[in-house]
Amino acid sequence: MASYTAPLRDMRFVMHELLDSSSLSTLPGYEQATPELMDAVIEEAAKLAQDILLPLNLSGDAEGCTYENGVVRTPKGFKDAYAQMIAGGWTSLACDPEFGGQGMPKLVSTVFEEIVSSANTAFGMYPGLSHGAYRALHAHGSEALKKQYLPKLVDGTWSGTMCLTESQCGTDLGLIRTRAEPDADSGFRITGTKIFISAGEHDLTENILHLVLAKLPGAPAGTRGISLFLVPKFLPTAEGRPGARNGVSCGSIEHKMGIKASATGVMHFDGAQGWLVGRENSGMRCMFTMMNAARLAVGMQGLGLAETAYQSAAAYARDRRQGKSVGGKTDPAQVADPIIVHPDVRRMLLESRSMTEAGRALSYWCGMELDRAERHPDPAMRQEADDLVALLTPILKAALTDLGSDAANAAVQVHGGHGYIHEWGVEQLVRDARICQIYEGTNGIQALDLVGRKLGQDTGRLLRRFFHPVAEFLAAHEQDAALSEFVGPTAKALGRLQQATMTVAARGMARPEEAAAAATDYLRLFSLVAMAFMWCRMAEVAQRALQAGANGEASFYQAKIDVGKFFMARVLPRHSSHFQVVMAGGETLMLLPEVAF
Amino acid sequence: MASYTAPLRDMRFVMHELLDSSSLSTLPGYEQATPELMDAVIEEAAKLAQDILLPLNLSGDAEGCTYENGVVRTPKGFKDAYAQMIAGGWTSLACDPEFGGQGMPKLVSTVFEEIVSSANTAFGMYPGLSHGAYRALHAHGSEALKKQYLPKLVDGTWSGTMCLTESQCGTDLGLIRTRAEPDADSGFRITGTKIFISAGEHDLTENILHLVLAKLPGAPAGTRGISLFLVPKFLPTAEGRPGARNGVSCGSIEHKMGIKASATGVMHFDGAQGWLVGRENSGMRCMFTMMNAARLAVGMQGLGLAETAYQSAAAYARDRRQGKSVGGKTDPAQVADPIIVHPDVRRMLLESRSMTEAGRALSYWCGMELDRAERHPDPAMRQEADDLVALLTPILKAALTDLGSDAANAAVQVHGGHGYIHEWGVEQLVRDARICQIYEGTNGIQALDLVGRKLGQDTGRLLRRFFHPVAEFLAAHEQDAALSEFVGPTAKALGRLQQATMTVAARGMARPEEAAAAATDYLRLFSLVAMAFMWCRMAEVAQRALQAGANGEASFYQAKIDVGKFFMARVLPRHSSHFQVVMAGGETLMLLPEVAF
Repeated sequence: MASYTAPLRDMRFVMHELLDSSSLSTLPGYEQATPELMDAVIEEAAKLAQDILLPLNLSGDAEGCTYENGVVRTPKGFKDAYAQMIAGGWTSLACDPEFGGQGMPKLVSTVFEEIVSSANTAFGMYPGLSHGAYRALHAHGSEALKKQYLPKLVDGTWSGTMCLTESQCGTDLGLIRTRAEPDADSGFRITGTKIFISAGEHDLTENILHLVLAKLPGAPAGTRGISLFLVPKFLPTAEGRPGARNGVSCGSIEHKMGIKASATGVMHFDGAQGWLVGRENSGMRCMFTMMNAARLAVGMQGLGLAETAYQSAAAYARDRRQGKSVGGKTDPAQVADPIIVHPDVRRMLLESRSMTEAGRALSYWCGMELDRAERHPDPAMRQEADDLVALLTPILKAALTDLGSDAANAAVQVHGGHGYIHEWGVEQLVRDARICQIYEGTNGIQALDLVGRKLGQDTGRLLRRFFHPVAEFLAAHEQDAALSEFVGPTAKALGRLQQATMTVAARGMARPEEAAAAATDYLRLFSLVAMAFMWCRMAEVAQRALQAGANGEASFYQAKIDVGKFFMARVLPRHSSHFQVVMAGGETLMLLPEVAF
Repeated sequence: MASYTAPLRDMRFVMHELLDSSSLSTLPGYEQATPELMDAVIEEAAKLAQDILLPLNLSGDAEGCTYENGVVRTPKGFKDAYAQMIAGGWTSLACDPEFGGQGMPKLVSTVFEEIVSSANTAFGMYPGLSHGAYRALHAHGSEALKKQYLPKLVDGTWSGTMCLTESQCGTDLGLIRTRAEPDADSGFRITGTKIFISAGEHDLTENILHLVLAKLPGAPAGTRGISLFLVPKFLPTAEGRPGARNGVSCGSIEHKMGIKASATGVMHFDGAQGWLVGRENSGMRCMFTMMNAARLAVGMQGLGLAETAYQSAAAYARDRRQGKSVGGKTDPAQVADPIIVHPDVRRMLLESRSMTEAGRALSYWCGMELDRAERHPDPAMRQEADDLVALLTPILKAALTDLGSDAANAAVQVHGGHGYIHEWGVEQLVRDARICQIYEGTNGIQALDLVGRKLGQDTGRLLRRFFHPVAEFLAAHEQDAALSEFVGPTAKALGRLQQATMTVAARGMARPEEAAAAATDYLRLFSLVAMAFMWCRMAEVAQRALQAGANGEASFYQAKIDVGKFFMARVLPRHSSHFQVVMAGGETLMLLPEVAF
């Protein structure tokens, strides 16, 4: 089985020492959210994850979900675990107190998402999708709908879905065919088939609320003609209990590569009663307002899986004895040393760890900016935070989900042949992680979002939200000898990112295809610089702590610096290839005619 | 289901136009092996693969092998397919005519291995392992053993295994515990348990011949005390039929991530009768003489999977309509263009294709050198060919199996959500490809073989076998304007490879850990340069063909040049990061103490 203990000390380091989470309690509505409270919450979350969710991860994968006559059963233990989760109030964590929520900051729910994904990504899909539905309804639903449905999503007795994809369209939602016809009862009748619906049907909750994209009669073509509807599985009675069955049914569930314990349904809507959420034809906008949080959540799945992959690989590498150290110390009493002595094994471990730690810092930063964007009393500060979130979201989604897959594959490689065997639990991580690079917008789409939307927005205003603090930090620490191994390489990489940015912008202006051709490598270049910036800041915090005596944690802080140095010397150089590919331009992508593929 | 049609034209291009396969028929024993005969063979192989093996690939994965009371059943259709395979004489292809083989060149069996792996990697394991056993026995068995057993392996009625791994050791075979005790009947009695034994037990053949590594009483410690034994499942009768059951049994089969139709057994030897192969305590040497061919065969699995992944992704990208082209032509009659118009989709396809084509050229080159190493009348030429094979083998094994995984993952990504669903057949490719990076020596071990053994051998003699022809080609074409996009970038990358080589050699001399720290990045740098060299040569051949009129195949040759240009502009730049990491040295790998992982 995979190994996982929530890295609480690392999390606290990022939340409190790097990001100054204490500032959150100055925001209206977050007065109670002190670092102490946040610590208490994540400690409890760690217990939930380690004691209840993790033990179900491997068995849930082996058993999967079952489908019979429209009924879907989750694997053994899931129902009970879900009941414990809602009993603990976890579904209400970052929800509005007006509807029964605990009103905790996004930073805390971001950490919680990481912990749950580390322990059991498939299980996390159920509350995760509910929370997505909660956000959409909270942001765009009428007061009546919110009053009727939100408390159920918040207390977790009902769950939610997002029904976007159809067989002919995923990325290009303008092509959807599901129709909504005006109707006297509910307002609308929904007809059509949606595919790939996570948590579309299951046995964890007494009711399921589908948020469905559909087209009204005479709606404009493309994405401007899409509306969002709430379609419950059971129509609520006047007492708020599940009543008559609505015209929604699950036709089948998919046989997937991974997250097998998450039921992915084909959902048929046959004149189902639906209620409009938001205005007519504004369905895509309703989706987009919650897209940043949803994409960050998928990024947290990648990060969570990377952490478990790293921990599992490190545990195996400390335990497994094979070969003798080629240099340095070896244990003469043993016929072989633990494989952690071998440089190439350390390379795999440190690549995963150095990117996971940087990715954690980056994503928590983004989580905190989500809070500031929502709550800061100064509109200018809200805008600034919102800009940074908008910029970082596609980078985080793509980079952290790529990391999830890379770290999981590295864990398999460290395990050798055992890594290929189900019982060891790391090949499951590879399979589970793979979907994160695809859903909620493929990583290619994230890259296009970055170069096509975010890069040029308001003549680069979003970019400056990132470039300015980086440049300021580097300038302030230019002469800091203790950080020389951090500041120099980061400055060089930043210079190349800025050059690449100008090149992509200029070429893309003349030929949009050029920006698209550069997109993925540009995003990867950007993510490496962003991670390098996080390492600069983490190293600076760690140096300061060491200078201040480290309070008995010298080895913790020293490890931060050591892992950061590895990142600078052996991961950041990857930026160089991405820079060259961006600069090479897109010409050679378009030479081959379609028929020659 | 995955799409695959054997790329016969590409194969012929490499065999005949690039490598001059007609020279093979000048080697003793290969007089019949004309290009025409080779073409006829691979055309028939393509039919076998496409008509019989490919249709069983997805179903074989879904069904897997089953184990009951020591009996293993392969998936539906496998028995019949295997019967057709041996009826067609495919198991005898590259075998010695003295024992019933067809005596075809290694080049042909290399192509055959690619084709079979493309269609059904799991199926290919059964004849593949038999061929490994054939080679070991052919090279090291006594005349009596060879006469008794080889014809059965050649005609495919009996199959073979290689029993090396035990639970406590894979990479480090010096730790094996299986014992061999002298015995009056067969010579030896073998006792011990082997794990991860591919084709260890199954229902395809009437007998199974295990080649087992074991230790004789009083044998030296470590790898110098290992001997090789032949242990048949059924002891042959005087008439050569399977007789009494030997003390070998299959305790269970593994639940693997992929190649599920290949039975991977835990094999118990309980005083089983065994016959010594080779001399006492020379078991590791016996293994090593066949290692190059076996590692090349695993490389061909990676290449074959990459080809199928590419073809499946290209077929989907031509068919699936989603979004409109951001620039260039779009079809106004359609609401969306096929996704192959999108630059980022082309990027994924071309990364896979440009490396697959270069990998094919490199591996066929190595296959041909295997023939020259074995058959050339001039010992100096044999040595030269053997040197090149020894150098290229770890590079091919690692680079082509990494490619197999990368291309399979790219195919999943091109398919979007559908790629994650079993029925589409591409997620299976990811799972099947993953083991190739692990078995027959992990790719990390390949890298250590390259820097630790091959690089310094005879003061760089092996290296010169590669560097000299590359340097000669580049010098000869320095002024060739038609190749300027090829020669320039390759020369630059070669220069860096040479600099990295000297650095690794110098540092490794002082501290072996430094060579180990550089190994993986050095191998990747090397493989990119080797692929670039192949593209230089392929582009040169294609240019010449175009200048000569191209005989109605102008678009074929132009595609070679176009794909090669893509490689130079957008894949080769990856060498730059690997170069920097090599030069960065290993210091940051060793900073973190073991307890801090």
